[in-house]
Amino acid sequence: MVESLVERYKRELFDSVVPFWLNHSLDREHGGYFTGLDRDGSLYDPRKYVWMQGRAVWMFARLCNSTGHRDEWAAAARSIVEFLRKYARRADGTVWFSLQRDGSPAFFQRKPYAGFFLVLAYAEWYKMTGEPWYLDEARALYKLVREWIADPTLLGRPGPPVSQLADIMVEASMALELLSIDPHDRYREHMAACLKRVAAHERDGLLLENIAPRDLPEGRLFCPGSAAEVGWFLLRCDPSRAQRDFLIDMIARAIDCGWDAEHGGLFYLMDAEGKPPAQLEAPMKLWWPHTEAIVASAQAYSITHDPDWLTRLDRIDRYAFGHFADPVHGEWFGYCERDGTVSNTLKGGPYKGFFHVPRALLFAIQLLDRV
Amino acid sequence: MVESLVERYKRELFDSVVPFWLNHSLDREHGGYFTGLDRDGSLYDPRKYVWMQGRAVWMFARLCNSTGHRDEWAAAARSIVEFLRKYARRADGTVWFSLQRDGSPAFFQRKPYAGFFLVLAYAEWYKMTGEPWYLDEARALYKLVREWIADPTLLGRPGPPVSQLADIMVEASMALELLSIDPHDRYREHMAACLKRVAAHERDGLLLENIAPRDLPEGRLFCPGSAAEVGWFLLRCDPSRAQRDFLIDMIARAIDCGWDAEHGGLFYLMDAEGKPPAQLEAPMKLWWPHTEAIVASAQAYSITHDPDWLTRLDRIDRYAFGHFADPVHGEWFGYCERDGTVSNTLKGGPYKGFFHVPRALLFAIQLLDRV
Repeated sequence: MVESLVERYKRELFDSVVPFWLNHSLDREHGGYFTGLDRDGSLYDPRKYVWMQGRAVWMFARLCNSTGHRDEWAAAARSIVEFLRKYARRADGTVWFSLQRDGSPAFFQRKPYAGFFLVLAYAEWYKMTGEPWYLDEARALYKLVREWIADPTLLGRPGPPVSQLADIMVEASMALELLSIDPHDRYREHMAACLKRVAAHERDGLLLENIAPRDLPEGRLFCPGSAAEVGWFLLRCDPSRAQRDFLIDMIARAIDCGWDAEHGGLFYLMDAEGKPPAQLEAPMKLWWPHTEAIVASAQAYSITHDPDWLTRLDRIDRYAFGHFADPVHGEWFGYCERDGTVSNTLKGGPYKGFFHVPRALLFAIQLLDRV
Repeated sequence: MVESLVERYKRELFDSVVPFWLNHSLDREHGGYFTGLDRDGSLYDPRKYVWMQGRAVWMFARLCNSTGHRDEWAAAARSIVEFLRKYARRADGTVWFSLQRDGSPAFFQRKPYAGFFLVLAYAEWYKMTGEPWYLDEARALYKLVREWIADPTLLGRPGPPVSQLADIMVEASMALELLSIDPHDRYREHMAACLKRVAAHERDGLLLENIAPRDLPEGRLFCPGSAAEVGWFLLRCDPSRAQRDFLIDMIARAIDCGWDAEHGGLFYLMDAEGKPPAQLEAPMKLWWPHTEAIVASAQAYSITHDPDWLTRLDRIDRYAFGHFADPVHGEWFGYCERDGTVSNTLKGGPYKGFFHVPRALLFAIQLLDRV
C-alpha cells in the first residue's frame, strides 16, 4: 500500500497540482499570482491575498529545496516574493491582508497571520537563494508576529488574548522554519513553550481550539483538521517521549471523533458537547482538514509503524481523492456539502491557494518514502 | 387558499413561535432574553446580542400595538428594553454588539446595525408607552446610524462606503418607523432618497447586494432574501407608480432566479454570473430569505391581486413549513443544507431571535386579511 500511495501522490503533485497553478495563476504583468480561480483555472477574483502569496513562495521554494531546482518553480517563487517585498507591508510595519492586482492596497485584517506567511515565504526563499534581506526581514517579522499574538490590541483587536490552537501552530511553525536557517537557541525555547501550551487545550481527550469557558460556544469548539495539523507540526518540534505519545493520541482522536459516520469525511467544526456550533459551515467537508489528516497519519505511521495508522490514512485518502481531487482540470476542489457533493467549484480563493494540497503530498511522500 | 393560510399563520404565530420564546428565552435574573437556544429551548450560549435584543423589543411591542395588549408580551418587551437602556451603549456613544448575561460588555462590531435595532426597539416601545426618553434616544440614534453608514471610518472601518442593499433597507426601515411616531418631512425625504438609490443596484434584472466593480465577487453578489426584503420595505415607503412596478418586478425576479430548481428553496447567496461565490454558506437554505419572500409575495399580491403571487407564496410557504417549522418544540429551525436537511438544530443565535418568523407571520396575516 505504501509504495502505491507514494507513486500516486507523486503523480498528483507533479502532473495535476503543480501544473494547474503554473498554467493558470501567475500574473505575468504585475508579478505575484492569482488564487481566485474557478474549476478550469478561469479568473473570478483578481485580488492578491497576502496569506496565499506567502504560502506559494514557501511551497515553490520548498519544492526546489527538497526535490531539486526547476527553473519554472524558482521563477514563480521569485515573481511572488518580489511582489510581496514591494507591496505587502504597510507604512506602520503591519501587513496587508489583500492587495489589488497591481499591488495597491485592498484590505487590512487585524490579525497576525499575513505576517506569519511572510515569515514562511522569506525563510524558505532565503534558504534557496541566500539573499540576506529575506533573512533579516523574516527575523524582524518573527518578532512582530509573536508580539501581535501576545497582544491583539497592537493590531486594534480587543484583548486580552485567548489561547488559540492556531496561534500555537503558527509560533511552532515559524520557529521550526527559522531554526533551519538561523541556528539559535531561542527557536528551540519557543518550540518547547509551544509543546507545553498545547497540553492545556486538551479536554476530555480532544484538542479544543480555544481555552475559554465551557458555557460559551468558543470554549467547546473542536476543529479536527486543526488538531491534526498542530499535532503533526509539534511532532517535528523535538517533543519528549511523553509529549510525542500525547500528540499521536490527540491526532488519532481528532481523526476518529471528527469522522462523519453517516457520510464519511472529517467535519470542519464541531461542538465538543454536541451543542449547536456557531458557524454555519461547521458540517461541511473542507479539503484542508483532509490534507492535514493525511500528513498527520503519515507522520504518526513513520514514528510508530503501527498499521492502524495505515488504516486511517487509507480511509482519509479514499475520501479525499474521491471527493476533492479533480482529474479533469487538475488541483482539488475545496468545499463539499456534508453529503460530499462539491458545493463550490472554486480551486482557489482568499484561503485556498498553492499550499495545503502540494504540502501534504510532498510531506506524505517524504514521510512514507522514509519508512 | 388565502383564508386557510391566514388561519395557519395565526396558529403558527400564537401557538408555536411566541410560546417558544416566552417559555424558554427570558432571563428573569438580569433582564433581557437569551437567543442561544437549541431545538428544545435549552441554552447553549448565554450572551445577549444587541441586534437580537432590539428586534425582540420591536416585535413584542408591535404585537401589543397591532393585535392588542397582552401583559406577558408587554412585560417581556419591558425587561429587554430596560436591559438595553442600561447596557447597550458605550461611553463614546457607539453600541455594543454583544453583552454578557449580566449586561457587562462582550464584543464591539464596527458596524452600524446594533444602533439600527435600538432605533426600531425604542420607536415601537415609545409608540406603546409614550415614555419620552425612548423617542429622544430613537431620534438621536437615527441620526448617528445614518452618519455611520455614510462614513464607515467613524466606526473604525475602511472607507469610502460601498452602497449596500442592506443599508438602504436599514435607512428606509428607520425612517418608516420614526415617521409613525414623529411626523416630520425629513423621514419622507429620506425614504424618497432610498427609493432612488435602490434603482442603481439593478443589473440585468437583479437587485445586487453591492455597487462594486463586476470583476470582483462583491460586485456580482446576489442575495434573493435581501432583494425580497428591501423590495417589501420600499413598497411601504410611498413609491411612485413606476417605482412600485419596479420593486414588484425585482421581488418576482429575486424569488424566481433565487429558487433552487433541483432541491427547492431559495439559495442564501449567488453569483449573478454563475461564478464561485466567496461565502462557504452560499448554497445553504436559511429561514429568513423564506420569511422575507413570504412577506414580499403577500405584499405584492395585496397590491396587484395577480394570482401568480399566490402561486409563488404557495411554493415558498410549502418549502418553509416543510423544512424550517418545528411542530415538536415550536419556532423554526434556521439553517438547512442545500438539500433541505436541517444542518444545525439551533432555534436562535447571534443572528436569529424573536424577529423574522413572527414578523413575517404577523405581516402576512395583516396583508392577506386586508385582501
